Amino acid sequence: MGKEQKVVIVTGASQGIADPANPSMPRYLEDFAPGQKFGSGRLTIDKERINSFAKEFDPQPFHLDEHAATQTIFQGLAASGWHTAALTMRLLVESEFNPAGGIVGAGFDELRWPRPVRPGDELHLEIEVLEVRASKSRPNEGLLKVRTATLNQNGEPVQISVGNLVVKRRPQALT
Amino acid sequence: MGKEQKVVIVTGASQGIADPANPSMPRYLEDFAPGQKFGSGRLTIDKERINSFAKEFDPQPFHLDEHAATQTIFQGLAASGWHTAALTMRLLVESEFNPAGGIVGAGFDELRWPRPVRPGDELHLEIEVLEVRASKSRPNEGLLKVRTATLNQNGEPVQISVGNLVVKRRPQALT
Repeated sequence: MGKEQKVVIVTGASQGIADPANPSMPRYLEDFAPGQKFGSGRLTIDKERINSFAKEFDPQPFHLDEHAATQTIFQGLAASGWHTAALTMRLLVESEFNPAGGIVGAGFDELRWPRPVRPGDELHLEIEVLEVRASKSRPNEGLLKVRTATLNQNGEPVQISVGNLVVKRRPQALT
Repeated sequence: MGKEQKVVIVTGASQGIADPANPSMPRYLEDFAPGQKFGSGRLTIDKERINSFAKEFDPQPFHLDEHAATQTIFQGLAASGWHTAALTMRLLVESEFNPAGGIVGAGFDELRWPRPVRPGDELHLEIEVLEVRASKSRPNEGLLKVRTATLNQNGEPVQISVGNLVVKRRPQALT
């Protein structure tokens, strides 16, 4: 385990399109619409943290040992998919997406890793709102269906997810 | 971040039903059948690691700060869903499930967290094989569809996943 990860967030790399004048303002359910896209910062992943994450959470040869990994389905050292998922969350939390109440996952319809994440890869996100709906049972909440693509430095997807997030509705004005 | 997690694997708690005489022997595609169930060891999660995981990967108040968390949808400190997912992977890798070639996820059809994981919770798995099929394009591989329930010390599910795993076929005997 040992050294903790140094997540390198490169500021200024966000590409969000909504509220460019105030990217830090939380968005309520009413502020989202299908087709909206948001970007993220970027971070790099190094071999040492791939290994230490795997030692704690996913101790398998293709995540732990560069030489042994060459003999596996990954044909070389690769990050645990859960490490990629966790880094994706970090990028999502710090992106301009910023839903009111935080990023609260109700569950995923899809989660897959189309290609390995290698030591030195630099990751960023493309976030797209697919659906927006009010909750029938909870008047103060709604659900967003969001597709998040995690891309490497070559623009190739390393993780694709379609998830449902709980988002607060805008507080009603008193009338 | 700081302290690394102490994962407490309680040995002897596994409940796998296949190959009880030799739980460490890898299973090929041909050794799996729908309806097979496997258990896992147990591990506990503490507040300090909930906080440090969140600081690195999911920096939101409900994972970071006990007091602030009481004002959120979680009504108290809860582990990041990605922390629960990563711990589930650790339990799965060290369980009697043991597919040949390792636990290699091709993707998930479902992943959700029905209730929060709290500091001090002890987690274990119930793993069930749903489908077994040979690959059409890769003669040496097949796919398992597996449902994994992560349960707390009260037997309540904290994570449910349905995932597809790549598993090696048994090497053919020469004839």
